[in-house]
Amino acid sequence: MTDELRLRTAFPVLRTITTRWQDEDVYGHVNNVVYYSYFDTAVNGFLIDATGTDIRRLDAVGLVAETRCEFLRELNFPGDVHAGLAVTRLGTSSVVYRIGLFQGDSDEPAAIGRFVHVYVDAQTRKVTPVPDTIRAALTPLATPSR
Amino acid sequence: MTDELRLRTAFPVLRTITTRWQDEDVYGHVNNVVYYSYFDTAVNGFLIDATGTDIRRLDAVGLVAETRCEFLRELNFPGDVHAGLAVTRLGTSSVVYRIGLFQGDSDEPAAIGRFVHVYVDAQTRKVTPVPDTIRAALTPLATPSR
Amino acid sequence: MTDELRLRTAFPVLRTITTRWQDEDVYGHVNNVVYYSYFDTAVNGFLIDATGTDIRRLDAVGLVAETRCEFLRELNFPGDVHAGLAVTRLGTSSVVYRIGLFQGDSDEPAAIGRFVHVYVDAQTRKVTPVPDTIRAALTPLATPSR
Amino acid sequence: MTDELRLRTAFPVLRTITTRWQDEDVYGHVNNVVYYSYFDTAVNGFLIDATGTDIRRLDAVGLVAETRCEFLRELNFPGDVHAGLAVTRLGTSSVVYRIGLFQGDSDEPAAIGRFVHVYVDAQTRKVTPVPDTIRAALTPLATPSR
Repeated sequence: MTDELRLRTAFPVLRTITTRWQDEDVYGHVNNVVYYSYFDTAVNGFLIDATGTDIRRLDAVGLVAETRCEFLRELNFPGDVHAGLAVTRLGTSSVVYRIGLFQGDSDEPAAIGRFVHVYVDAQTRKVTPVPDTIRAALTPLATPSR
Repeated sequence: MTDELRLRTAFPVLRTITTRWQDEDVYGHVNNVVYYSYFDTAVNGFLIDATGTDIRRLDAVGLVAETRCEFLRELNFPGDVHAGLAVTRLGTSSVVYRIGLFQGDSDEPAAIGRFVHVYVDAQTRKVTPVPDTIRAALTPLATPSR
Repeated sequence: MTDELRLRTAFPVLRTITTRWQDEDVYGHVNNVVYYSYFDTAVNGFLIDATGTDIRRLDAVGLVAETRCEFLRELNFPGDVHAGLAVTRLGTSSVVYRIGLFQGDSDEPAAIGRFVHVYVDAQTRKVTPVPDTIRAALTPLATPSR
Repeated sequence: MTDELRLRTAFPVLRTITTRWQDEDVYGHVNNVVYYSYFDTAVNGFLIDATGTDIRRLDAVGLVAETRCEFLRELNFPGDVHAGLAVTRLGTSSVVYRIGLFQGDSDEPAAIGRFVHVYVDAQTRKVTPVPDTIRAALTPLATPSR
């Protein structure tokens, strides 16, 4: 990934998440686990808002197949976190997101993540195409993955 | 509550819960919120084990109506926590639990909690009697509430 | 507590907290434990903002001595939660908060909580007076406890 | 990674973690975020036990630089999770762990993770060598990374 793909301006969507006292661990910064909670919240919150649908009730649901995070700088309570979302691959049945976490005025990310959803039938849990309403919501987020 | 009702020996059931690194907050002890996670886990884990049933699939489910906790001493990672369970009221539609949290060899609690379940119909969410299988599992835990 | 003390308008301060996907449990509503995370975040976030001080670095820190919650209605992701704060007792060494959680336009609370901080010396952990900066920040929140 | 490196038997150390009711999300399985809490707990719990030291008080502390997880099957409450630990790289200042999560009798993992600690001076936060006590504890876990 080239450096400019990590900047705040490289993400078509930014979601605001309030931090919590409990997010910080004994080292006085947001614990590494919590970054993934921000990822999960940003992706699903965007999908619910952009589709106008409770995605949990669709016939196909997105299961998380893989996630990654590169931790670049501390996040702290009580400042807000801004989660940038981009889609680097919009496949038949899967979606790959690039996520950047930002805090304060900096354009430099505190973390860069990768988040992969695979869509499965809500009943059978067999792999199934990305629902049309979700595909439509994600198309504007598609960016090169260089 | 008399003092002896707070001791480890006053609880008919003890459940072991492993602490997690993330449970500790910036002050280097388990965060107050996490104590309630231990309560929730002890009650529901006991009910699943004692009934041999996935209680989430019953026609009536227990919703939490009220909880309380008195914080008496620190809990720390990585030691295990022992959650003592007693039932101080087994009503028609509700159950009141007294919960004690212990760590290490001490008989003195780190916390004393109160946890109230009200049973509702899984579909309509109307108040409904405690299911027989749950009532049977809880009867041995009933203790005076003095 | 009289009913009007439970309404949104009865709380001098309202703090906004964004919900998270992970806050919901298997029943499709915010898990009871998470309500306490909202309490903790609202109180400490207010104190940090109102004092302009990182309260974790003061000579006296607030330990949580007791909390309670009455659960009145569901909270859901992805809507924001508004946490109302009032101080029902501002003692020499302790502070008792009343907290109301609200979601959407309703003036009726989803939950009413009680949260008690006892101040202790950061080194010795002996009970000590509420720091002046915190007392000053809390005075405008003091309300009758009827 | 060859397939046999994913099996339970490929991990020199197994740590037991109790699941919690709150770990499950609306889909009725352990939420993806929580897997990372298991990673964090297994690594730090092992280090504390194996060194006999509270690693948070050492002059050098391990900050998490990168984590990953491949989600292969569901985990559920109330069964225990077994976290297998192996060290695939024990560098001058960093340690790379491979982690496998298992539940029930299966030798097949529910998840395979990667967890990277970089050691920094506790005061200056500058990169510093892995402390000797930690290096000694980790040497028996070193395995090929094929």
